[in-house]
Amino acid sequence: MTHCSRRARLGVAIGATGLDAMLVTDLVNVRYLSGFTGSAGALLVYADDRPAVLATDGRYRTQAARQAPDLQIAIARAPAKHLVAQAFDSRAAGARQMGFEGHVVTVDGFEALSTVAAETSQVTLVRASGAVEALREVKDAGEVMLLRRACEAADAALSALVERGGLRPGRTEREVRRELEALMLDHGADAASFETIVAAGGNSAIPHHRPTDAVLAAGDFVKIDFGALVAGYHSDMTRTFVLGAAADWQREIYQVVADAQRAGRMALVPGAGLRDVDTAARTVIADAGYGETFGHGLGHGVGLRIHEAPGINAAADGTLLAGAVVTVEPGVYLADRGGVRIEDTLVVADTAGQAPDLLTRFPKELTIL
Amino acid sequence: MTHCSRRARLGVAIGATGLDAMLVTDLVNVRYLSGFTGSAGALLVYADDRPAVLATDGRYRTQAARQAPDLQIAIARAPAKHLVAQAFDSRAAGARQMGFEGHVVTVDGFEALSTVAAETSQVTLVRASGAVEALREVKDAGEVMLLRRACEAADAALSALVERGGLRPGRTEREVRRELEALMLDHGADAASFETIVAAGGNSAIPHHRPTDAVLAAGDFVKIDFGALVAGYHSDMTRTFVLGAAADWQREIYQVVADAQRAGRMALVPGAGLRDVDTAARTVIADAGYGETFGHGLGHGVGLRIHEAPGINAAADGTLLAGAVVTVEPGVYLADRGGVRIEDTLVVADTAGQAPDLLTRFPKELTIL
Repeated sequence: MTHCSRRARLGVAIGATGLDAMLVTDLVNVRYLSGFTGSAGALLVYADDRPAVLATDGRYRTQAARQAPDLQIAIARAPAKHLVAQAFDSRAAGARQMGFEGHVVTVDGFEALSTVAAETSQVTLVRASGAVEALREVKDAGEVMLLRRACEAADAALSALVERGGLRPGRTEREVRRELEALMLDHGADAASFETIVAAGGNSAIPHHRPTDAVLAAGDFVKIDFGALVAGYHSDMTRTFVLGAAADWQREIYQVVADAQRAGRMALVPGAGLRDVDTAARTVIADAGYGETFGHGLGHGVGLRIHEAPGINAAADGTLLAGAVVTVEPGVYLADRGGVRIEDTLVVADTAGQAPDLLTRFPKELTIL
Repeated sequence: MTHCSRRARLGVAIGATGLDAMLVTDLVNVRYLSGFTGSAGALLVYADDRPAVLATDGRYRTQAARQAPDLQIAIARAPAKHLVAQAFDSRAAGARQMGFEGHVVTVDGFEALSTVAAETSQVTLVRASGAVEALREVKDAGEVMLLRRACEAADAALSALVERGGLRPGRTEREVRRELEALMLDHGADAASFETIVAAGGNSAIPHHRPTDAVLAAGDFVKIDFGALVAGYHSDMTRTFVLGAAADWQREIYQVVADAQRAGRMALVPGAGLRDVDTAARTVIADAGYGETFGHGLGHGVGLRIHEAPGINAAADGTLLAGAVVTVEPGVYLADRGGVRIEDTLVVADTAGQAPDLLTRFPKELTIL
């Protein structure tokens, strides 16, 4: 099973750092490692071959058994505390090192767990922040399949929106958002993967604009940043259209962003420095004289969260891994006039000679509606 | 301004516990106290009359100024650390006590803040968990207005769904969910307030069922638990229908749940013990012989989060406050056969003589479609 192999990889990783077990309390990480999607629960993964234990409360007894049939299930009011208390046989000798997610467990939560650990007097809680996220950075085949489906749902919804004339002068940003989100549901999405951005005219110059009752007008840029959620996996895509006729300045910045986006995609090779990928796209925009208008990073990983490792930006350390799924989303934003962003979600190939696998396939040519 | 008076109340509350300031990092609490809705930021509220400071990163410079025009805005890559460092004039004498949200700040985050506090050598971080949540338990007039709008959007969507024949044999749970969520958007919701539950037939016996491709059939219970999100405020309502004709056992448990729900609503008076409210409804179900099938709490507060204080259940301490907005949602679930839940969202009145204000107004009589 997929979840089983993920847990096995985690077991190896934590064993290598001297831990005997790892307490996973981030619910997205619990889902990744077990398949369990309830809103309360924790997972204990051992470094050795003892079976993992999923603890949850009584509401999820049936669901846990169904979603994680290969796991031991424990029902408890306080799942994480239960796992700390029950992790090791109290008659066995010697202290045990248990990793916990220091970037997830709160100060209050840690105090409660520490109390239990002290009572059992055998468990030492050790920070192991990001251990599961490191595994999640590279997607396995099942994950890529779901990400592909999420991207397909978004592609189909945007195509349907354009075909039925949904983007036209007179509509409000909010109306467009609602129609697009409904179309995603029609095309297989479980939900929108984040709050859809529809930004018309001057609003398109705001990178993260929330849809308002602003009315689309002829000559406007309309920037749409949105995605679909399928079985927990998020897609992320931005397209920018022009209504009516495109002015020269609009054609110019569209071309700059399109060129930068292509340069960013071409730089997506395994082993590339994350910062260098950002630079590849950023240089195109800077050379065209718009460098100061591109104030955000080039991209980010996407998966069970809409934003996850790796970040692709000027401050990023590290390199791009084969099998990572990332966005490439440069933009040029001219305050009060308008802005363009073009964004795809792609799978980094296994070797440098292969192009990344483009998951968001809606056309990127300048489209005048 | 509303946000201003909320901050003033927090200032008084923390001053009474000896704190000089409070660092608010929970983004829902930041929103409650400032109006700022960005995805990164922190707020510093002083116990004295110094103006509060909202820190966020560069992406939200414009939005923060627009949403919180009465606040000092600081732009920083690490907003919470910035606030700890800048909270007090380093030339002033004496250590300062700064509250932080121990139920929100992670172990890693606390370490980073502690380092900054030690460097400034003037700030002592003190746990003040739940200080803002305690204020949020009682809703002010602006909040009740938004909750009412959220409930109205949900009411209107369910009415439209029923009127257009959306609940009929042959449709899948997923189809019903999608249509209902689209209808909520049509009726003024910004989004669904949580993942809509549509549970048909035997699935209705699962309290928190996720919609599947299961097909609605004549004779089924169809249980729908859903809500709308309006300007950050959540509504929450459950209705259970019967398709075709109702069997005697269906009529019986529907009546038991309806009676229990009414008893729960009647018990919603300010000053009532939370546990006693739960008991009022639970006793009706137990007396009818179904006590063991009602395995969850009776209700919960609802507001900027779908679940917030107070919890109304058998283990709850404390009393119901005037102006709290809560759900009342008893259920009877017969495994593999079907289940009924009836849930409203209500505002607790100011005096014991007044009935609670019912925000979810869709009818509760057994409806056979």
